[in-house]
Amino acid sequence: MAKMVRKTYLLTPGPAPVPQEILLAGAQETIHHRTPQYLAIQEKALEGLKYLFQTEKRVFTLLSSGTGAMEAAVANLLSPGEKAIVVVGGKFGERWKEICENYGVVVHEIPIEWGDAVEPWQIEKALEESPDAKAIFTTLSETSTGAVTDLKAIAEITRNRDVLLVTDGISGLLAQPLKMDEWGIDVVISGSQKSWMMPPGIAFIALSDRAMEAVKNSRNHRYYFDLRAYDKSYPDSPYTPGINLMYQLAKSVEMLKEEGVENIWERHRILGDATRAAVKALGLELFAKKPGNVLTAVKVPEGVDGKKLVSFMRDNWGVTVAGGQGHLKGKIIRIAHLGWVSPFDTITAISALEMALDKFGYKVELGAGVRAAEEVFRREDI
Amino acid sequence: MAKMVRKTYLLTPGPAPVPQEILLAGAQETIHHRTPQYLAIQEKALEGLKYLFQTEKRVFTLLSSGTGAMEAAVANLLSPGEKAIVVVGGKFGERWKEICENYGVVVHEIPIEWGDAVEPWQIEKALEESPDAKAIFTTLSETSTGAVTDLKAIAEITRNRDVLLVTDGISGLLAQPLKMDEWGIDVVISGSQKSWMMPPGIAFIALSDRAMEAVKNSRNHRYYFDLRAYDKSYPDSPYTPGINLMYQLAKSVEMLKEEGVENIWERHRILGDATRAAVKALGLELFAKKPGNVLTAVKVPEGVDGKKLVSFMRDNWGVTVAGGQGHLKGKIIRIAHLGWVSPFDTITAISALEMALDKFGYKVELGAGVRAAEEVFRREDI
Repeated sequence: MAKMVRKTYLLTPGPAPVPQEILLAGAQETIHHRTPQYLAIQEKALEGLKYLFQTEKRVFTLLSSGTGAMEAAVANLLSPGEKAIVVVGGKFGERWKEICENYGVVVHEIPIEWGDAVEPWQIEKALEESPDAKAIFTTLSETSTGAVTDLKAIAEITRNRDVLLVTDGISGLLAQPLKMDEWGIDVVISGSQKSWMMPPGIAFIALSDRAMEAVKNSRNHRYYFDLRAYDKSYPDSPYTPGINLMYQLAKSVEMLKEEGVENIWERHRILGDATRAAVKALGLELFAKKPGNVLTAVKVPEGVDGKKLVSFMRDNWGVTVAGGQGHLKGKIIRIAHLGWVSPFDTITAISALEMALDKFGYKVELGAGVRAAEEVFRREDI
Repeated sequence: MAKMVRKTYLLTPGPAPVPQEILLAGAQETIHHRTPQYLAIQEKALEGLKYLFQTEKRVFTLLSSGTGAMEAAVANLLSPGEKAIVVVGGKFGERWKEICENYGVVVHEIPIEWGDAVEPWQIEKALEESPDAKAIFTTLSETSTGAVTDLKAIAEITRNRDVLLVTDGISGLLAQPLKMDEWGIDVVISGSQKSWMMPPGIAFIALSDRAMEAVKNSRNHRYYFDLRAYDKSYPDSPYTPGINLMYQLAKSVEMLKEEGVENIWERHRILGDATRAAVKALGLELFAKKPGNVLTAVKVPEGVDGKKLVSFMRDNWGVTVAGGQGHLKGKIIRIAHLGWVSPFDTITAISALEMALDKFGYKVELGAGVRAAEEVFRREDI
């Protein structure tokens, strides 16, 4: 095997690639966080977050991974013994369920086949069966399958009822359109290592007024994730914030604002379209019934070892895509479009995929996937 | 036009891409150069250079661009009124001629059609016509055309005669095989912004024993580029060295040594083969008659504005290739394989080229170039 230059092409649904501008922003001197100098940076970041969440409400930043913000949602909105509807269509729906159960919440589960997404009528039905449910936990983009939930339609059901609509937008926000206030979503969560083009470390949570009311009424024990503390000190932080991560967030928010949310949604959509076209041109199947633009999940063809395919591309060519999770291990690969991914990163992923499949004995016309992607790029006038 | 993420893909024959490891090596604290701590770093770099130049002789490092080392060669080897044979087959052959003329050297020019390379018989003939020539100035890889000179064959002629063989290996060294001692080349020059994977700033010059004799005999005025000073202070520096550049050189040399010269030559060859195959598959013509692996020069097809093609790829997609120089402006594009270029960077260049040609109205089968490159990569088992 020839020894070639190996660069890292990060095409996983988190962490996603971080531009040098943001890396270097984080490499600046650590200053003290209880100073006007630091606070000015944090305030700038927080202000920009409102626009990116499409909300007038406060967006709190937690120094944790996205899971911390998920726990904060459950711990602050509900009390033990209360009921919640939980949509479970993949690993991250399962996580909502686990956290709810951990907090003694009575779970009304809507089980969804992995790769599919919940339909509005299923939400209606669950609400009829559990009219006492305080909240509905959903996943904007289920990272384990690439399927996307139609939150706009679901919010039309929930916004005039006494139930909170919560969504895990950790990987989905910015990659998929979401208008928190306009659509009427009560709680939106995200995480820095996704479309935010940052390393992991900051989780986001934004709450509607009625969700903030629920926070005040919860009887749960909570401390680090007590959103009352974050609300009280806002725009300052109750505990030590991720100082250098905040430098990066300020830069990220500046770059994203300049780009504009519609453009951000659009570039993810174009990369998704190009990848889906390539997958079909290679004679492969998409896994998700409702594929979104966070990632494209592809069924590994019969006779090919999906785990080896992923490690081969990564270890030999540096092209890092994700494999399957849970019962999908070895059965799908997931190519992300998340964040700082250029059309040529997508071309690289497709080129590597077709060469790797060829290597693994799957009959593929070399170049066919790239051609299909290029045709999408031409049509979209990238 | 859709707003996509734009990364910079540097596929020019200098500067060439610099890996983060080397960038970060240069970002370390500037220490004083007259210290054992600094000298240890410089000594390590100098020792590695011998291996990479394939010589037992000293390789001097000048704080200048490559042109500085070219001037050093002329100023140190010859005296005004002496004669030199100069091969001129492109912009950098012309530079040898200009420097020689500046220094009052009598030039016996071997004019070569741009894109072609000098043949050994032409050297023989020139030596017959100018038996008093003290030196022959050649270009390993003519950056303006991508043509490569067969220095091994030429050295077979010169090494047993009283004439010095000098080569500008600024862009060529490491990308093209060269064995200074074994082949018997007297002077080899290179520059850091090429296969060395560094920013510009350090030029290299290595000299055989008989070339060092000539240095001592030159009657030229010279100071900064006086190689006697560099020889006298070696491995230390006569004047302030590029301290942070030297950190980078030490890292670069470490990485290149670990890779091994044969492997370095080979990866450039594979990228060159892939690009040449892609060019042919797209129905385009190679410019050079003797194309090498520093870069591939491609004739811009009839009806396409080559300058606009280059700026379109750069300004819209960040894919930076070089256009033509001198009378080739607008007529060729040059895709480099130099340094820290991965197979997927080459795929990116080809994909961008085919999409750009399509955009400019040239009839091209999208994906055809990429397919041809992928076929080479498969054959070479990258």
